[in-house]
Amino acid sequence: MTLLLEELRHNKLLWLLVFVPVVFAAETLAPEAHTLLFVLSVLAIVPLAALLSHATESVAAKTGDAVGGLLNATLGNLTELVIALAALRAGQYVLVKASLAGAIVTNTLFMLGGSLLLGGLKYHVQEYNRISARMQAGMLFLATVALLVPSAVSQADSVAGAAFTQRLSVGLSVLLIIAYALGMLFSLKTHPELFAGAESGEAGEAPWPMNLALATLAGVTVLVALVSEVFVESVQEAAEAFGMSPAFVGFIVVSLVGAAAEMASAFSGARKNRLDLSVGVALGSASQIALFVAPVLVLVSYLIGPTPMDLQFWPGAIVMMFIATMSASLVTNSGRSAWFVGVLLLMVYAIFAMTLYLLPPGVA
Amino acid sequence: MTLLLEELRHNKLLWLLVFVPVVFAAETLAPEAHTLLFVLSVLAIVPLAALLSHATESVAAKTGDAVGGLLNATLGNLTELVIALAALRAGQYVLVKASLAGAIVTNTLFMLGGSLLLGGLKYHVQEYNRISARMQAGMLFLATVALLVPSAVSQADSVAGAAFTQRLSVGLSVLLIIAYALGMLFSLKTHPELFAGAESGEAGEAPWPMNLALATLAGVTVLVALVSEVFVESVQEAAEAFGMSPAFVGFIVVSLVGAAAEMASAFSGARKNRLDLSVGVALGSASQIALFVAPVLVLVSYLIGPTPMDLQFWPGAIVMMFIATMSASLVTNSGRSAWFVGVLLLMVYAIFAMTLYLLPPGVA
Amino acid sequence: MTLLLEELRHNKLLWLLVFVPVVFAAETLAPEAHTLLFVLSVLAIVPLAALLSHATESVAAKTGDAVGGLLNATLGNLTELVIALAALRAGQYVLVKASLAGAIVTNTLFMLGGSLLLGGLKYHVQEYNRISARMQAGMLFLATVALLVPSAVSQADSVAGAAFTQRLSVGLSVLLIIAYALGMLFSLKTHPELFAGAESGEAGEAPWPMNLALATLAGVTVLVALVSEVFVESVQEAAEAFGMSPAFVGFIVVSLVGAAAEMASAFSGARKNRLDLSVGVALGSASQIALFVAPVLVLVSYLIGPTPMDLQFWPGAIVMMFIATMSASLVTNSGRSAWFVGVLLLMVYAIFAMTLYLLPPGVA
Repeated sequence: MTLLLEELRHNKLLWLLVFVPVVFAAETLAPEAHTLLFVLSVLAIVPLAALLSHATESVAAKTGDAVGGLLNATLGNLTELVIALAALRAGQYVLVKASLAGAIVTNTLFMLGGSLLLGGLKYHVQEYNRISARMQAGMLFLATVALLVPSAVSQADSVAGAAFTQRLSVGLSVLLIIAYALGMLFSLKTHPELFAGAESGEAGEAPWPMNLALATLAGVTVLVALVSEVFVESVQEAAEAFGMSPAFVGFIVVSLVGAAAEMASAFSGARKNRLDLSVGVALGSASQIALFVAPVLVLVSYLIGPTPMDLQFWPGAIVMMFIATMSASLVTNSGRSAWFVGVLLLMVYAIFAMTLYLLPPGVA
Repeated sequence: MTLLLEELRHNKLLWLLVFVPVVFAAETLAPEAHTLLFVLSVLAIVPLAALLSHATESVAAKTGDAVGGLLNATLGNLTELVIALAALRAGQYVLVKASLAGAIVTNTLFMLGGSLLLGGLKYHVQEYNRISARMQAGMLFLATVALLVPSAVSQADSVAGAAFTQRLSVGLSVLLIIAYALGMLFSLKTHPELFAGAESGEAGEAPWPMNLALATLAGVTVLVALVSEVFVESVQEAAEAFGMSPAFVGFIVVSLVGAAAEMASAFSGARKNRLDLSVGVALGSASQIALFVAPVLVLVSYLIGPTPMDLQFWPGAIVMMFIATMSASLVTNSGRSAWFVGVLLLMVYAIFAMTLYLLPPGVA
Repeated sequence: MTLLLEELRHNKLLWLLVFVPVVFAAETLAPEAHTLLFVLSVLAIVPLAALLSHATESVAAKTGDAVGGLLNATLGNLTELVIALAALRAGQYVLVKASLAGAIVTNTLFMLGGSLLLGGLKYHVQEYNRISARMQAGMLFLATVALLVPSAVSQADSVAGAAFTQRLSVGLSVLLIIAYALGMLFSLKTHPELFAGAESGEAGEAPWPMNLALATLAGVTVLVALVSEVFVESVQEAAEAFGMSPAFVGFIVVSLVGAAAEMASAFSGARKNRLDLSVGVALGSASQIALFVAPVLVLVSYLIGPTPMDLQFWPGAIVMMFIATMSASLVTNSGRSAWFVGVLLLMVYAIFAMTLYLLPPGVA
């Protein structure tokens, strides 16, 4: 408890935890105030995501390298997963898919671009381990390709029916999870030295004792799940009130909220000239979404969704995912960076955000 | 005046200046001889573009590094800009867009490919500064991506209407100009050393005195504008007479005419084993079109065009721009070149040209 | 003859030659047993392809570097060419095109991925000549782009008619063959040192004497042609019996059969830590299909096909070819490999194969 309080003092972000009870109170008192509920649930999710991230790392630090790495890799996108599950249960498949595609785009363009810009404003030229960055960019490229092939192929051939898409989605989900498992075997067991730079994690923050970490992990996951439900219920109508298209909300707003905790550590890594950490978090998180979160959601949709979900994305989302991963590949290719490289990535992100914001409803 | 005459003696290209009065005479005497006017205006624009380019460099050389670089970067594609403005005033948006996309493709495939081939025929293997080439290829890639995202997204979703496209085009134009300004800040102020090789410009030709340079700049710009009007008026009907599709004229003919002056310096750089110069001119010019000329035309269309112009390109143009920039990225990645690399780029250009030439009218 | 027998003892694959007479017998006795004929013809083509490959190399080894290299480069995909010619004569253009696209995808993903995986299971990290790999990946990229541009452009613009596609296909075929000839000039004459690693070929196996090699070359080509006819006639109906879509058969089954011999040498090279050989065979073979086999088939279709064939591919095939070559470019960029890189390439291949397998008939 003292540790938690100390954490509260150090980490200003956690003061936002006060919004957790507020959001539940508001939901009971004013269940129709969608815009208010939306804002409150965003404010409540951000500190919960930070707690979740710290708890995961603490458990990982205690359990030793292999299991710890496994935990970190699997629970790293727990917030995104829980939000997506809440949307899945509500049958909001458009939102789920937009948030998956958006998370990939946000991680590779906004998180990476922001890191390179923030780092570049402090250091003239920054260097990082290009071998590990290349490996991760390549993994991300191929992961995203895997995710978008079925959409591209069946898009091109409108003859292919829903049954085809559904069967293909299940098969691909199994393949992607196998690839993900092999990827962990590769990065944790057989070739950990290639990922050395990125693994060192958020050093500096002392890990919590095991009991506290496990209790936090369990408790906070439940809280995120509860708040996510409020978030998912209110997001659609709040978006209308703000004049945002649903595509913009799923792609940009949900993704930024879900990735807030990782973003904080990627940005602070860049400011400390530890770009390996930033690149690792940004690209690793994006490929985890493509290789693990997306296929798990497809399989889980058979258990908890009203109808099964498939992996077919809206064509604009495919274009954006493809461009985002291509940009990341090109940018990380050299192992060197200066501030303008970050600006270029952020510009592409801004262009996507603007396009989505202006998109008339009913398109995505 | 003596300097101008000396220039005339040295630079055989300038003898074509005789066609400037000829084109005006022909326009008065035979305003319906479209094919003749087209040929004459092409012959007149080429030496004017060369003069414009030399005058810009002379002013740039006199005004010191920062302002000079700024001038060079902004006025480098003055010919293209003036031709496009003439087409804009005539409401020929299809021609404007084809010439923008064509300029990007021509610079990255024909100018770069030609330089690598000509250099490679003289030197067995040529090396150049891969860091600067990569930086420029990356900038070009991201610039082109920015240009084609709205087309790709709204292409994919035909639901999105004209109002959406128009608002998006204005917003993107502002974003692109900001990116362009930041890019100049980067290459001229904060990180000029990364662009060292390319900046050294057309050394060897003595700069003109300031007065002459400024007068030439002003006078020749007016002449280019006048000749461009004849060119734009005659191009459509001349194309039909030659059996060329409008897409071929805009993409290939207009782009080659507009880039003639830069091409001369890129090719001569390659023959002197100064590939940094050639790569810098080719890729720099292409990204200037994407980041500066295109958005300026969109914004200016609100002032001088019959109706506003948007940034939505014909799908085939998007495919070509994307492939052209991808090819440039791949080719310049290694910092080494031999003649066959140039052949490959030229082959892709020839394939594009052939496709456009055979395309039935009414498509692009 | 003794040499042939000795070869038989060494190379277990050649025992499959027993299926050559069996397939002819079966065709006479049971011409309607399509499934049986299909299986038998596959089993017969594999050892014939291996013999053809060995004979080509033997002739190449005897005729000196330039002519030998020329022979090797031209006859390397003789099996694919003969199979495609048989399909062409039968007017099965869908099968021809699927097998061309499939050969490019299979060589770049399955052959390269399998080599990297098999090599990586034996060696922790493998290095290879990145300059030559890059050169080949770049050539492949541009070759494939050349092949897919017309499809992409005319796909995007459905207005363009069949006459346009046909004229364009002939023009492009001529361009591609010129590019191929220049590429041989480059790799054999002017810059052979860049391809040093890959050229060393299947050393270790003693070449045959000239007479034997030439006789084998001639005789086996005839046999392959005869067996291919049985294969092409039976493949469609056998596919239905197995529940495979025609796209899957053309893309996956025919490609794997046609490339069996090269695959054997690429895989064995990787196991001997000679990745230069594997990368050279995989990418070289793929670009040969794009630059030589495909255009030759278009031109030959005017002589032997019922109607001319064009170069327009089904959109899903374009997406797959493009992704395959992009993946190869990214992966070979670093000149280093570990087992997981191979897994990723194989995963993309598995995703393609699964998509094609599930595709309802009538799409591709």
